[in-house]
Amino acid sequence: MKERESLLERRARLIGERAPLFYDEPVHIVRGEGVWLFDADGKRYLDCYNNVAHVGHCHPQVVDAIARQSATLNTHTRYLHEGILDYAERLTATFDKSLSSLTLTCTGSEANDIALRMARLCTGGMGIICTDNTYHGNTATVDELSTLFNEGKPRSPHVRAIPFPETYRPLRDLEGEALADVYADEVRKAIDSFRQAGIRLAGMLFCPIFANEGLPTVPPGFLKKAVNLVHEAGGLFIADEVQAGFGRTGTMWGHQISGIVPDIVTLGKPMGNGYPVAGLVTRVDLLARFRQEIEYFNTFGGNPVACAAASAVLDVMEKEQLMDNARTVGDYIRVGLGKLARRHARIGDIRGQGLWVGVELVRDRQSREPAPEETKQIMNRMKDRGVIMGRIGRYDNVLKMRPPMPFSRDNADLLLGTLDEVFGSP
Amino acid sequence: MKERESLLERRARLIGERAPLFYDEPVHIVRGEGVWLFDADGKRYLDCYNNVAHVGHCHPQVVDAIARQSATLNTHTRYLHEGILDYAERLTATFDKSLSSLTLTCTGSEANDIALRMARLCTGGMGIICTDNTYHGNTATVDELSTLFNEGKPRSPHVRAIPFPETYRPLRDLEGEALADVYADEVRKAIDSFRQAGIRLAGMLFCPIFANEGLPTVPPGFLKKAVNLVHEAGGLFIADEVQAGFGRTGTMWGHQISGIVPDIVTLGKPMGNGYPVAGLVTRVDLLARFRQEIEYFNTFGGNPVACAAASAVLDVMEKEQLMDNARTVGDYIRVGLGKLARRHARIGDIRGQGLWVGVELVRDRQSREPAPEETKQIMNRMKDRGVIMGRIGRYDNVLKMRPPMPFSRDNADLLLGTLDEVFGSP
Repeated sequence: MKERESLLERRARLIGERAPLFYDEPVHIVRGEGVWLFDADGKRYLDCYNNVAHVGHCHPQVVDAIARQSATLNTHTRYLHEGILDYAERLTATFDKSLSSLTLTCTGSEANDIALRMARLCTGGMGIICTDNTYHGNTATVDELSTLFNEGKPRSPHVRAIPFPETYRPLRDLEGEALADVYADEVRKAIDSFRQAGIRLAGMLFCPIFANEGLPTVPPGFLKKAVNLVHEAGGLFIADEVQAGFGRTGTMWGHQISGIVPDIVTLGKPMGNGYPVAGLVTRVDLLARFRQEIEYFNTFGGNPVACAAASAVLDVMEKEQLMDNARTVGDYIRVGLGKLARRHARIGDIRGQGLWVGVELVRDRQSREPAPEETKQIMNRMKDRGVIMGRIGRYDNVLKMRPPMPFSRDNADLLLGTLDEVFGSP
Repeated sequence: MKERESLLERRARLIGERAPLFYDEPVHIVRGEGVWLFDADGKRYLDCYNNVAHVGHCHPQVVDAIARQSATLNTHTRYLHEGILDYAERLTATFDKSLSSLTLTCTGSEANDIALRMARLCTGGMGIICTDNTYHGNTATVDELSTLFNEGKPRSPHVRAIPFPETYRPLRDLEGEALADVYADEVRKAIDSFRQAGIRLAGMLFCPIFANEGLPTVPPGFLKKAVNLVHEAGGLFIADEVQAGFGRTGTMWGHQISGIVPDIVTLGKPMGNGYPVAGLVTRVDLLARFRQEIEYFNTFGGNPVACAAASAVLDVMEKEQLMDNARTVGDYIRVGLGKLARRHARIGDIRGQGLWVGVELVRDRQSREPAPEETKQIMNRMKDRGVIMGRIGRYDNVLKMRPPMPFSRDNADLLLGTLDEVFGSP
């Protein structure tokens, strides 16, 4: 306790009072292993939140790959090296064959920054469409899309935010195809609005599962319609797979669920299991055009250690069949949550695919009035009982779970049991 | 040879035809150790170029720190952790006491991106002054300053580029204080030009040793005058220490040579000996103002492994007294180069501080006509003989050396001896 106080004081002094921190009483984590985190007092937490530790905290095979390559060579991509080529070959093979070029960066923000530049350069337009409750990264340019931190508004006249497909509280009282049409119409309106302002469309940047928006159940057909509209208007579609990607949905890429083919895909967080590696997979012609104009080089991007870490992640995913696991354990969790919902009226909606789980909490199921305070309380109480999760959504009332991929049925039982207790306690 | 062809072919296909590559015949490096690199044929190269491997390629102490922390915990800064605090305390102690806040990112580009946003936000201005032969990173916003790749011109109306202090070919036929005044006057003109355009000044971003500009000998007093002008006009001074920093000049920070105190300092390349870690050290009030407006978070930035790697770099620097070594061996190299210059008329100018060495090659010492082709040839021939260096400068005629910091006198003798041979051969 005292130690935590002193860490908080030092933190405020050295890295800033407002440096973001989780939980009312922040945790002091000192060790990680698989799906577990341990604090300084030796208390164990089931990690239902950290997607960066994709194949599990400190997975020995990834640690080994990092240690071995760090001891062998770590330079940059201006010398020839197999690492980046072997990885590029293997990674691009998981995409539609039109998406065959890889550019490596260190962060998802850098990947989205390039994606925006590439789209703007290749179309000659400036206009970008995003949603009204999103975040795609922290560079000055990408931050123009951070509607999540700006009351739904973009920070630039070159960005239009459409309402995200909030199917639990839809724009109109519609369902299915009709609902998809309503949201697609919002894309059309954004395109028209750019036209009226004399701004040429560059493209649309979405997370294909709308993770930051609160993991809404996407109306079938919506993404296809939206992408078609953007293409017809001369724009490109950028799929931000920084959170959605690498098998967590039970498919390798989030956009594959909707059967769409993006022009640019950005990658990040889970890619190196915590080693800073990210990037973008694009059509060859887009990369060629970009490189013709821009002398792009990233000092650490695609270095041999980054590629070794990223390759080890793919190795472990295959060996431990983690994509299958995401599907089966994710479904098991949602079924379990459905049972909890019979007993706990706060649970308004259960969503997600694979090991993406969102639980929207409401004060009343009829009115669907959001319950942000209760959500915060549940999140903090779960943490006190040793289960870590987050919250998201327009009203901060969606419990967000995206555990390391080796999350087992036993882990799910512990999660569900603890949720049951916490929902049940006053 | 054949293998290299196939790597080149795969590279063009997978990461783009124009992905930058060094040397006419690129090298295929597979191993590094200290100041040495080894190619796939087992050929050894003395590395006089790679500053990222600051304390030496694959330094066991850094590798160990990375391996150990990777096996223990690697999460993010939204949990409490000593790693970032211990490092912040230690690092900021090496700066003027006004520079006491640390923000960690993954790349120097990200650090400069934040620095520009911070300066703009805190001053309410947009105008940034840089030089006409510079590069500070690759995000869309930072790239507006990439005059190096754009014929000396900034890519934005909010940026003004002043002529860098090219003291080997000065603006006027002046020296000393008078020369400093001439360049300071260029800063004044830039400030006036912003005023006339109705653009408020945000600040000035310089590498304090003008590394990308060709390592000119900075006229004494110039930086002080320039920074004063910027401060008087309400702007901030950002020192880009991504290349200059961490003791390479023989002082800890490049700006300390000129006795100036920046408002913001950005860091990168050598910081983690190749592990992707970078950041900025700022005044407390600037960080507080920035964080008040911007919800900044960097997923990998400041993670425990990054901090372990960065701390190990400081440990090794101290233990092996690498800053002292940079001073003595750097001076030894420059003295040796002076002797070579007596025999080889191509050597027009010898510059640099500590283990920063620039050798400007000319066709004629009187006219100082640049010799870019010869410089390229020398660089390629040195590589063929197993010594790696780069080239920079407005005319691409400056041999650029910035070897790993444990570079010894013996290494220097090999460098000088090989240069002597290569300069001497037709």
